[in-house]
Amino acid sequence: MSQNHTYCVIMAGGVGSRFWPMSRSNRPKQFLDILGTGESLLQQTFNRFLKICPPENIMVVTHQSYRDMVAAQLPSIPKDNILGEPSRRNTAPCIAYAAYKIKAKDPEAQMIVAPSDHLVLKGEEFTRIIREALAAVQSAPILVTLGIKPSRPDTGYGYIQFTQEHLKGHDPVKKVKTFTEKPNLDMARYFMESGEFLWNSGIFVWSVNSITDALNHHLPEISSVFEDDMDKLNSPEEAGFITRAYTVCKNISIDYGVMEKADNVYVVPADFGWSDLGTWGSLYEHMPQDDNANAVAGKNVILYDSKNCVVHMPSGKLAVLQGLDDFIVVESDNVLLVCRKSEEQQIKEFVNEVKISKGEEFV
Amino acid sequence: MSQNHTYCVIMAGGVGSRFWPMSRSNRPKQFLDILGTGESLLQQTFNRFLKICPPENIMVVTHQSYRDMVAAQLPSIPKDNILGEPSRRNTAPCIAYAAYKIKAKDPEAQMIVAPSDHLVLKGEEFTRIIREALAAVQSAPILVTLGIKPSRPDTGYGYIQFTQEHLKGHDPVKKVKTFTEKPNLDMARYFMESGEFLWNSGIFVWSVNSITDALNHHLPEISSVFEDDMDKLNSPEEAGFITRAYTVCKNISIDYGVMEKADNVYVVPADFGWSDLGTWGSLYEHMPQDDNANAVAGKNVILYDSKNCVVHMPSGKLAVLQGLDDFIVVESDNVLLVCRKSEEQQIKEFVNEVKISKGEEFV
Repeated sequence: MSQNHTYCVIMAGGVGSRFWPMSRSNRPKQFLDILGTGESLLQQTFNRFLKICPPENIMVVTHQSYRDMVAAQLPSIPKDNILGEPSRRNTAPCIAYAAYKIKAKDPEAQMIVAPSDHLVLKGEEFTRIIREALAAVQSAPILVTLGIKPSRPDTGYGYIQFTQEHLKGHDPVKKVKTFTEKPNLDMARYFMESGEFLWNSGIFVWSVNSITDALNHHLPEISSVFEDDMDKLNSPEEAGFITRAYTVCKNISIDYGVMEKADNVYVVPADFGWSDLGTWGSLYEHMPQDDNANAVAGKNVILYDSKNCVVHMPSGKLAVLQGLDDFIVVESDNVLLVCRKSEEQQIKEFVNEVKISKGEEFV
Repeated sequence: MSQNHTYCVIMAGGVGSRFWPMSRSNRPKQFLDILGTGESLLQQTFNRFLKICPPENIMVVTHQSYRDMVAAQLPSIPKDNILGEPSRRNTAPCIAYAAYKIKAKDPEAQMIVAPSDHLVLKGEEFTRIIREALAAVQSAPILVTLGIKPSRPDTGYGYIQFTQEHLKGHDPVKKVKTFTEKPNLDMARYFMESGEFLWNSGIFVWSVNSITDALNHHLPEISSVFEDDMDKLNSPEEAGFITRAYTVCKNISIDYGVMEKADNVYVVPADFGWSDLGTWGSLYEHMPQDDNANAVAGKNVILYDSKNCVVHMPSGKLAVLQGLDDFIVVESDNVLLVCRKSEEQQIKEFVNEVKISKGEEFV
């Protein structure tokens, strides 16, 4: 039964302060029904993976303060599958923790790693691509990432350049040439026109052996922490061990720490209606819009002479909005935000200033 | 003791829907602390009149559904001084009711009539002008109105044209030539430049005999209702009588019904920092403003790249507002309004549409 060796790891540690005031430090973006569908982004991600493996093979890595929230939103996964991080250390320690925990009980495992807060509109295509990647990592000791075909010269993403060399017997699995972090606009335009570049989705597929080999090679200071004490994982000593492990693990991303350095990295070009929903603007692109290009969530929102706005209001609140063009209007609990969509990168700064001047109750 | 013959009548029946969503049908403008001073406009008006007469000589005419709210805000006046109207009939029936009620117990009375929801910034000057007018109406059987020196060619007010003829022995009390309702802009400019025109403040001073004589002459269909049953006023039968009286009283303003027609009308030109606070825009003019000309009420409002805005937020609510120029932003209970200041005349229509499409809970 090959399915039993397939594990999904959902990374759910983020804060998503760009979605403030809907997201708060005690209620990050992945736990919100930000699209108004009735399911949080985490629940959508989980349901997507139920097509790949059973709930007992789905793990969620999150900050330990969010463990109860994960358990409440995903009642069908075992409590032991919710991995609590004592501090935020970026993706490399998070993936190492999950990989060694899985390896400790199933050395033959393959794993998929995915963020909890991304949008996937075409679920069937997503499943097909994941299966394609799983087949590839079963046939060769490679690291696979999913690359999204760019639809615009976005300067907010990392890009992956791929070659026409593919994994033997797996045409869609292309050899990666380079990883490039957020380019400038000219570069992004060139990337897009060339047809050789894909957006880095942050969704990875590999066997636990391949990723632990890669960690040993490229991040030995992290892997050694786990290698030495693998027997503590899946035991009553796990929590104590992780608390100590995280104090010594450095803060580094899996992209920078492993993917950009390894020579066995492949990418599967994919087109499954993906968005990282990184900002209100990107959410706006994926919400239904009215005739004036307004995207509205909230039962009682009335717009006059307004266009290109994204509005998110609690259902019990009436909002009458007049004369707004290209604005974000969001109300959540005790906070109202009105901000030009073109200035949304400032929201992070607003949150910091609010925290300093008004206190934790608003962030 | 001449003071005992002086009565103040505060008209507090309005709804003030242009101040929605702060004003609601169950909480009209006059009951709100709209300036953030800690006192409602009604309380400010009442306190102004305490300089003129004792609380037992101050009366408030309001819709009967607001009587309890008046009593709660003005605990020092006798319950019998709160006159409940069964329906809205404009100012003539309201003034007739108060005038006959006062006349029934004190035929020698003078009375001041004033709206409950206007702003007066210069209280001492107000008192001085009122005393001037009281002295005039004690010396002659005239009707006096206070006229405000115009500071701009406002097309929203009625104008009073006065002559240089003054009441004998009372230089500042000028004979009125004409009343003109809301003029167009050219006319308003001409009025202002001529120096012969004043804004109609809706504040009147007269003896009860002078006003009842005028009502008998110009609105006999109203005065006869009260003349015939004056003995029922100040008796247990008053409420029942008023219910019947208001079904037969026509809906007409004192300006149109009496002041424009009477030939014994005088005006005292006044300059006591007056505003009728008819709109958010006029409120804005009278609120303290920051360096970017934003007028803000609310402890937790943070503005970025915004100017010329009027913002009114509940104290427990944080508002972060970016990129707004010349907007009204008001939140109150379950409603948020964002509207260009230049479009505030639309607010009345918004309220009507909300009432139809969303129901009474929001208006």
